[in-house]
Amino acid sequence: MTEKKEIILTGDRPTGPLHLGHFVGSLKARVELQETATQYVMIADAQALTDHAKEPEKVSQNVKQVLLDYLAVGIDPKKTTIFIQSQIPELFELSMYFLNLVTWNRLKHNPTVKQEIQQKGFGESVPAGFMVYPVSQAADILAFKATCVPVGEDQRPMIEQTSEIASHFNRIYNADVFVKPKALIPKIARLPGTDGQAKMGKSLGNAIYLSDPVDVVSKKVKKMYTDPNHLHIEDPGTVEGNPVFAYLDAFGTDISKIQELKDHYQRGGLGDGTVKKYLLEVLLEFLEPISKRRKELEEDQQHLSNILESGCEKARIITAQTLSEVKDVMHLNYFSK
Amino acid sequence: MTEKKEIILTGDRPTGPLHLGHFVGSLKARVELQETATQYVMIADAQALTDHAKEPEKVSQNVKQVLLDYLAVGIDPKKTTIFIQSQIPELFELSMYFLNLVTWNRLKHNPTVKQEIQQKGFGESVPAGFMVYPVSQAADILAFKATCVPVGEDQRPMIEQTSEIASHFNRIYNADVFVKPKALIPKIARLPGTDGQAKMGKSLGNAIYLSDPVDVVSKKVKKMYTDPNHLHIEDPGTVEGNPVFAYLDAFGTDISKIQELKDHYQRGGLGDGTVKKYLLEVLLEFLEPISKRRKELEEDQQHLSNILESGCEKARIITAQTLSEVKDVMHLNYFSK
Repeated sequence: MTEKKEIILTGDRPTGPLHLGHFVGSLKARVELQETATQYVMIADAQALTDHAKEPEKVSQNVKQVLLDYLAVGIDPKKTTIFIQSQIPELFELSMYFLNLVTWNRLKHNPTVKQEIQQKGFGESVPAGFMVYPVSQAADILAFKATCVPVGEDQRPMIEQTSEIASHFNRIYNADVFVKPKALIPKIARLPGTDGQAKMGKSLGNAIYLSDPVDVVSKKVKKMYTDPNHLHIEDPGTVEGNPVFAYLDAFGTDISKIQELKDHYQRGGLGDGTVKKYLLEVLLEFLEPISKRRKELEEDQQHLSNILESGCEKARIITAQTLSEVKDVMHLNYFSK
Repeated sequence: MTEKKEIILTGDRPTGPLHLGHFVGSLKARVELQETATQYVMIADAQALTDHAKEPEKVSQNVKQVLLDYLAVGIDPKKTTIFIQSQIPELFELSMYFLNLVTWNRLKHNPTVKQEIQQKGFGESVPAGFMVYPVSQAADILAFKATCVPVGEDQRPMIEQTSEIASHFNRIYNADVFVKPKALIPKIARLPGTDGQAKMGKSLGNAIYLSDPVDVVSKKVKKMYTDPNHLHIEDPGTVEGNPVFAYLDAFGTDISKIQELKDHYQRGGLGDGTVKKYLLEVLLEFLEPISKRRKELEEDQQHLSNILESGCEKARIITAQTLSEVKDVMHLNYFSK
């Protein structure tokens, strides 16, 4: 029996291509989890529109880019259901019903959203759609009755909000429709940006993308931040907080060689250029098969479209079933029986 | 050609049976408008749930009661499309996309909503769904591309919000999908409650319902508020603000007789009992055919269900078309072409 398999919902906002940080933080785990869990991966275009309402073309074009990244790293559409959020109408219905179960005040004080509003500089003109996205996210998770949601530590309040909605719904409608999901916080520390910043992102220009060509990767590695006090080759260098070594730890396979390099760097006598040259080798070895697969996949656009379409169809079977249960207990199925 | 016909969207929240105030304020006009306009009448169960989330059964049961009221007063499902809001998934999708076009701040300052929050005593615990209902209402109106929306003066900000969303959408997506609707403010003053209050409603217990049986109407008319200074029959009485005369004006057909009664009342010598007796006659004459039609309709529940189901089907043809146009300009139609 497969009854006790975890159900996972996860995904990405299609606002740009995925980078090495995405691989370390989530894609790698998805490739593993698809072997044992029932995994749904959502390309969250509707959520992307909550703060990119004026750039729908960008969002829409990135849907296929994100899909290519998924497939290229080994997310297998036979094992993982990959779907596009906007193509699942049930998610919108659930979102609107869930909005009735959450107070305005509660939304206002969501710590994740508060922080994001500050980061994005929205101020008073934050779109209402952005303010309510935790509720829409709860709808995504609960529609699939996900038992597990991989999130960063900073996203924990989102899972709390989802759990609240699940129990509030069950209590009000005297039903047993939803389960509270668990947050699956990854053990691996976040991969730093190439500039050494903790956060990696498009706007920061400090990310190496899974789809970057060799020359771009090479340039980015050469410009990579290292230990700023490591001025001469013979100086002892610091490994902690040095992105070059963080990337080696994340992508290198020859652990003893990496340990040797670290020791040498800390002793002094090892130049940044040498370590970077090795990192470039390591990264290209990692990226090369991904890049090759991506190119092959890109050639058959119809195949990509079919993967998304069939993923959406599979997803809708689940969400339609959940919505029907929801409407049953809310006495909203006027015609079906 | 029927190109220039007005398209009307209107409706009611199914939170209770409809009363004489509804007839005067909206139902009467709908019976007339269905002859010349394309009219959609929405039973707004989803909107009712924004502040009745805990009473879904009450909302759901009132859907058929409201339908019976509609049909009994002469709204003809062959001329008017009567549908249930929750059965039109496109309205939820549009609502969520429109939420991205409205700032949180704008919602917070909607004067109609602010007043309602106060009236309902929500305070800080106002449901998010209630705060965003103007956006959901805009989705209802724009989904049908309504040119005309009959509303009370106090609901004018709702039409302004809708117009804002329509032009904002067209501008952002460089499209011509939506038209700004006009508010159709009824000329007839609001019918007062039987207690003389301007507002009539269930919770106030001052309404005569279209479905009230004869003995209940009789009791309500007998207890009706009149001129509090008209203590003796021979005293001169006041007609202005006297609900008995307001009801006679609204429902009486013998205008000269009503004028005579008014003159006599103002001169003195006409007792409240006599005027009320006449008002009861007038009301029963008005209500009797409505009550008879209601009883006939109630006997064929399948017929009622069919009317709603076919209304929903007709409505969805329109909303699906609108949503498809919306998703086209938002680049969200990934598979259809």
